Amino acid sequence: MLHVGINGFGTIGKRVADAVRVQPDMTVAGVSKRSPNFEATIADDRGYDLYAAGEDGRVPFDAAGLDTAGTVHDLVEVSDVVVDTTPGGVGASNAEIYEDHDTPAIFQGGEDPDVADVSFVARANYDAAVGADSARVVSCNTTGLSRLFAPLEETYGIEKARVTLVRRGGDPGQTSRGPINDTLPDPVEIPSHHGPDVKTVFPDLDIDTMGMKVPTTQMHTHSVNVTLESTPSAEAVRELLGRESRLFLIPETLGIDGAGKLKEYTRDAGRPRGDVWENCIWAESVTVEDNDLYLFQAIHQEADVVPENIDAVRALSERTASARQSIDRTNDALGVGRGLVEHEGNAPRSTADD
Amino acid sequence: MLHVGINGFGTIGKRVADAVRVQPDMTVAGVSKRSPNFEATIADDRGYDLYAAGEDGRVPFDAAGLDTAGTVHDLVEVSDVVVDTTPGGVGASNAEIYEDHDTPAIFQGGEDPDVADVSFVARANYDAAVGADSARVVSCNTTGLSRLFAPLEETYGIEKARVTLVRRGGDPGQTSRGPINDTLPDPVEIPSHHGPDVKTVFPDLDIDTMGMKVPTTQMHTHSVNVTLESTPSAEAVRELLGRESRLFLIPETLGIDGAGKLKEYTRDAGRPRGDVWENCIWAESVTVEDNDLYLFQAIHQEADVVPENIDAVRALSERTASARQSIDRTNDALGVGRGLVEHEGNAPRSTADD
Repeated sequence: MLHVGINGFGTIGKRVADAVRVQPDMTVAGVSKRSPNFEATIADDRGYDLYAAGEDGRVPFDAAGLDTAGTVHDLVEVSDVVVDTTPGGVGASNAEIYEDHDTPAIFQGGEDPDVADVSFVARANYDAAVGADSARVVSCNTTGLSRLFAPLEETYGIEKARVTLVRRGGDPGQTSRGPINDTLPDPVEIPSHHGPDVKTVFPDLDIDTMGMKVPTTQMHTHSVNVTLESTPSAEAVRELLGRESRLFLIPETLGIDGAGKLKEYTRDAGRPRGDVWENCIWAESVTVEDNDLYLFQAIHQEADVVPENIDAVRALSERTASARQSIDRTNDALGVGRGLVEHEGNAPRSTADD
Repeated sequence: MLHVGINGFGTIGKRVADAVRVQPDMTVAGVSKRSPNFEATIADDRGYDLYAAGEDGRVPFDAAGLDTAGTVHDLVEVSDVVVDTTPGGVGASNAEIYEDHDTPAIFQGGEDPDVADVSFVARANYDAAVGADSARVVSCNTTGLSRLFAPLEETYGIEKARVTLVRRGGDPGQTSRGPINDTLPDPVEIPSHHGPDVKTVFPDLDIDTMGMKVPTTQMHTHSVNVTLESTPSAEAVRELLGRESRLFLIPETLGIDGAGKLKEYTRDAGRPRGDVWENCIWAESVTVEDNDLYLFQAIHQEADVVPENIDAVRALSERTASARQSIDRTNDALGVGRGLVEHEGNAPRSTADD
């Protein structure tokens, strides 16, 4: 049983902890939190050992009537692997702690790539992280693009990719972020950081990205163009993508026109927090003009990296024989693909049994 | 003096009427309206003769205490040229009226291309409309793309264009349109109608477009990729575009990050309604990677076609010698380019005097 510590219990951390909890080969060693806010009460309710990460230590937790088990150092001490889900930039300053304890560590995409030995997406480069001291699970957008590019590159070859990322302004709980009624080129300069970030996973990929920000909180939406090195039919591309366990091809018959209905669908399906772990690709948007492939996909910024973090834990700890084994185990335990109807072009989804 | 009738006095019609009013060679023959709403009181206040277009004729106007001068037939009778600004699809049903009166007519981009002899953008194909019986001023988005493509095609050649149009959900007054908090691929199918519509102006252009809809009301934002037939520097492209009188290169120093500040700027500058008649291109977004040009531009959906309608009036009526003469006269009378600082790469804007 792997004891996994989660340093930070915000948007990503709480999801990773809950995902660890349902894995057959992992247990939550504990979670850290700076302040006793509503998420701390959730950690307490779940029965996770709570470690105080703020400057005032356990004082504010005592005041809030929440028991703590120690400091972040104590958390690392009881962990076989640590997943650092602190805010972007903070993770790098924690790296020394993990090194001091000789504990493998996983960082998030908000950190610079050099924080870790490898930038990680399970479908693309699981093996590169096997046995490494640290891995950086790339951002939600980079994860979404990498999952898509992996089968396209393997099957058709990618000459060049051009993506416009229409990003949600903030998460549902981030009430101080904007815009309220505007569309912002963000950043105005091209390329956005997403293209270079994808290259941390696919070093040889030719990709240009443009970022925008809009007044939604639900999901990112990518407008994707991939100039392929061959010219498959749109139907062949749909079948290829439909065979990927972390890509969901939205059948036209579902009548899902945007992120709102997508998340209503996953809430209806009983997903925890209504999370959408899969890239959601509108099946009828998959279009091939000459060798230009186009499609739209929606990415749940709070959720798609969660199964990747689980796979990264297995890769660093060398407990699983292959990427496929880990991905299938994560999917099966978490419920990736579950509750979603299959697009008619989709082959049966892989499971831990096949 | 050209007597210009405006059939319809909504978002576009009221702007076209006000633009006609300030031209030295045109006068407003009258405007039509179906109901005596707030815009009818504006027409009355401006002193435009009001013609009743609804099924109940003048009755509702009488009840509202607004004088009417007759029906749409009467309006066409007193007009040398009619600009039809009725809702999309209604214009086509009015075509017979204009033909019966042998009156040249201008339609808007919401109509099918076959409603008129020519689909029109002054910078691209003014001469094609000279002396024609009818012209269709293409939609705001198609106008914005055509103004951009014309100098690029002439100077560098266009191998292929790929554009993602992130469209405002509705205009500020369209309170029943959505989305409120979502990003919609719209249409989900690729290409959106914009690519084929641009081809009504540039028949040989290779272009794929993807449309989206977001919860803003202010402007459309285009994420543009143009694969050129040559490889200019970004600075050369900025200089080329800066010389175009209906393209505004937003200097980075202005600190304008989106449509909100753009329109605040034009309101501060004293523009009528704060209208933005120009394509607004973020100067620092202009990027060339190999022969791929990228940029972001914002398009004010209520305003950019207004100067085009004025030029179309002149083209149909054959009153002006050249496209350049008409464009300069329209710009000068309306104030296109006025109140906007020049980007350092911009050459002096053309005026009626040069």
